[in-house]
Amino acid sequence: VNLLVNGEVSASIAALDRGLQYGDGLFETIAIRRGRPRLLSLHLDRLASGCRRLGIQPPDAASLTAEIAAVSPAPEAVVKVIVTRGGGGRGYRPPRDASPTRIVAGFDDPGFPPEHRVQGVRVRSCETRVAQSPALAGLKHLGRLEQVLARAEWCDESIAEGLMRDEEDRFACGTQSNLFAVLGGELLTPRVDRCGVAGVMRRVVLQWAAGRAIVTREVGLSDGDLHAAEEVFLTSALIGAWPVAELDGRGLRRGRLSTEFMQWLDRD
Amino acid sequence: VNLLVNGEVSASIAALDRGLQYGDGLFETIAIRRGRPRLLSLHLDRLASGCRRLGIQPPDAASLTAEIAAVSPAPEAVVKVIVTRGGGGRGYRPPRDASPTRIVAGFDDPGFPPEHRVQGVRVRSCETRVAQSPALAGLKHLGRLEQVLARAEWCDESIAEGLMRDEEDRFACGTQSNLFAVLGGELLTPRVDRCGVAGVMRRVVLQWAAGRAIVTREVGLSDGDLHAAEEVFLTSALIGAWPVAELDGRGLRRGRLSTEFMQWLDRD
Repeated sequence: VNLLVNGEVSASIAALDRGLQYGDGLFETIAIRRGRPRLLSLHLDRLASGCRRLGIQPPDAASLTAEIAAVSPAPEAVVKVIVTRGGGGRGYRPPRDASPTRIVAGFDDPGFPPEHRVQGVRVRSCETRVAQSPALAGLKHLGRLEQVLARAEWCDESIAEGLMRDEEDRFACGTQSNLFAVLGGELLTPRVDRCGVAGVMRRVVLQWAAGRAIVTREVGLSDGDLHAAEEVFLTSALIGAWPVAELDGRGLRRGRLSTEFMQWLDRD
Repeated sequence: VNLLVNGEVSASIAALDRGLQYGDGLFETIAIRRGRPRLLSLHLDRLASGCRRLGIQPPDAASLTAEIAAVSPAPEAVVKVIVTRGGGGRGYRPPRDASPTRIVAGFDDPGFPPEHRVQGVRVRSCETRVAQSPALAGLKHLGRLEQVLARAEWCDESIAEGLMRDEEDRFACGTQSNLFAVLGGELLTPRVDRCGVAGVMRRVVLQWAAGRAIVTREVGLSDGDLHAAEEVFLTSALIGAWPVAELDGRGLRRGRLSTEFMQWLDRD
């Protein structure tokens, strides 16, 4: 792993950093494709808007862009950016003079099986529920413990992702992806104003659909919705889009929308 | 600040530690009184049970106890213990071979005004809501961003604490304390099975009340409940108990229960 902390090569951060102490920060996970960060401006945009929502000074975009390039280990790779509120003493109150901590880490490409994009993936529904938190909903904040617990629910390597329900028993998201379904010709995806993350690729899909006059709606999705759907797929900055072939052992119908989206995303 | 990381003097932790990356860990904040950690066995008990809930190996109690003593800077002080799942690569899935990280930090006594215990404190109600998260409820986990945002809502130094509501508009907790009210002679405190932290001092209060045949009930508390109450008070490992004298500028009634509890807690 290649690591930069505030622009300097370092494998460590202060133990009193508020990112560790309180989860007081945000992150972005960026796909490097053909040597370039994919959807970089959308990542920078979400990071800056999240920082503003938390009252953290957003990082300088030019410096961050250079650091992302510097840590990327290969033309196909992953770069994770963390911005925390910085150091500080004990207590939740954000210090006035806090200076944010910026961590940029380059990882090898996760090497997802290419057939995931073509044949689709097997997914399961998780017991671990996702929190209803209007204050944090949409933010890609550092508190990911629910996702950790959900991901710990299964060891079967052939299960690519787990879906998490909200308290009303509607599917809200994957542990590391956003969820879409095509139902009655409409493109549906759960809202992100009470739980979940406003994924960068989710945004791209919604914009792409709007440009094609596909009706989109933000709604919770029940188990019945997913089994009735013409198509179900998952999105994230890293995976792009994966059709869901099977949920909890039952096959789902397969449509064309996610394939068309992936072809558009891969265009040059 | 005196700091030990895994028993060694160190001011830093690995930038890839899952405590920072995912909030994948727990903490305890322990009051040092007359040179000894107050309610230590309850803190160790909660930490171990939280670790088991998360599948993290709990720290050795004897080592941790020695480290708490070693970092404490004075007879009256605060020690914060953090246990994370440890290092690991990218991805939510807990690594099988993770070795937990243990951070023990000694801080000066926060120096709360002694009159808080006698005259009571002024508190406000926060706009920031506390998440409903059955998976994490009760745990003192590292994701405290909601509490940070709630604490950032006020700068008035004469306001000692903020109360946070759940989504049903009931008061669930303070930003760093548990909430109690005496109503109709019963001792009421919000449940901690959907949100909030199962505070060590909360547990002590409930046990103390049970030993005195005081009826206790775990229920959400409305604004009206607090204004009708014979007495409202806050508890935490650090503060013990503070009567609430004023909520959002309106005076509250004052009772004797919190004073009696504090006298019992301070007995020797």
